[in-house]
Amino acid sequence: MPDILQRVGIKGSLDDVYQALATRDGVAGWWSSETTGDSKVGGVLKFRFTAAGAEIGVIDMKVLELHPANRVLWQVVGGPDEWIGTKVSFDLKQDGDYCIVLFKHQGWKEAVEFMHHCTTKWAIFMMSLKSLVETGKGAPSPDDVKIDNWN
Amino acid sequence: MPDILQRVGIKGSLDDVYQALATRDGVAGWWSSETTGDSKVGGVLKFRFTAAGAEIGVIDMKVLELHPANRVLWQVVGGPDEWIGTKVSFDLKQDGDYCIVLFKHQGWKEAVEFMHHCTTKWAIFMMSLKSLVETGKGAPSPDDVKIDNWN
Repeated sequence: MPDILQRVGIKGSLDDVYQALATRDGVAGWWSSETTGDSKVGGVLKFRFTAAGAEIGVIDMKVLELHPANRVLWQVVGGPDEWIGTKVSFDLKQDGDYCIVLFKHQGWKEAVEFMHHCTTKWAIFMMSLKSLVETGKGAPSPDDVKIDNWN
Repeated sequence: MPDILQRVGIKGSLDDVYQALATRDGVAGWWSSETTGDSKVGGVLKFRFTAAGAEIGVIDMKVLELHPANRVLWQVVGGPDEWIGTKVSFDLKQDGDYCIVLFKHQGWKEAVEFMHHCTTKWAIFMMSLKSLVETGKGAPSPDDVKIDNWN
């Protein structure tokens, strides 16, 4: 099954990056500012995405693993059909001045056109995560960079 | 074999986007400003990448297909070991106001860490292509957005 992979290097500590991935306020700072729910293991985080004032999607993520300063794993339990059951992981490691984030969105059944879109969009959000940790300000939805007519 | 996929929507004509992909000057405007070689079918384009004034890589692409306003296909004949023999394609279609670019970098043997990096970096360059066509100014190497310690 095809996966979406990403790698970004963030000038910050493993702990800082982990906080941005493992807490509701953290994720709200780079992915969707409309984030609700429970970020503990077994909890469900709900992310709402809007563009031009209209809702364009809601994604529910069950938190499967939280390993401080090391790894976060979610599973999609609500959202677009192609996303249901897929898993999203973030693995962290130190490399010189950088915290390296290795991202994987795995379990796609097919490499559909929507997967092309999501690949580019995840890269945009990885850059938002990098900006949040490095500068204190990310670009989460609804202020995310738009890439195409699917937003 | 794992592939890198991307999708961007560009407010411009199919012809404008095609010119940015099929000509040496076009590609120099979004991927690497240090582009030499021959962009005709059967020719080889040579892309040099630099960061902080130092060369960080050279990629040689053989042009396999050029279908005006529709498709460009390259094959890597020189560059990083993981890239040799892989193919890079750009398929274009109109969707409302947008020219949709479906990008594929296929033929990777393994989903190595470098592939994670290249996925994020290709997204950055797709946004550079979008900017070039929409505003007349892209962000090719050496002025590309840096994403990690591999640049």
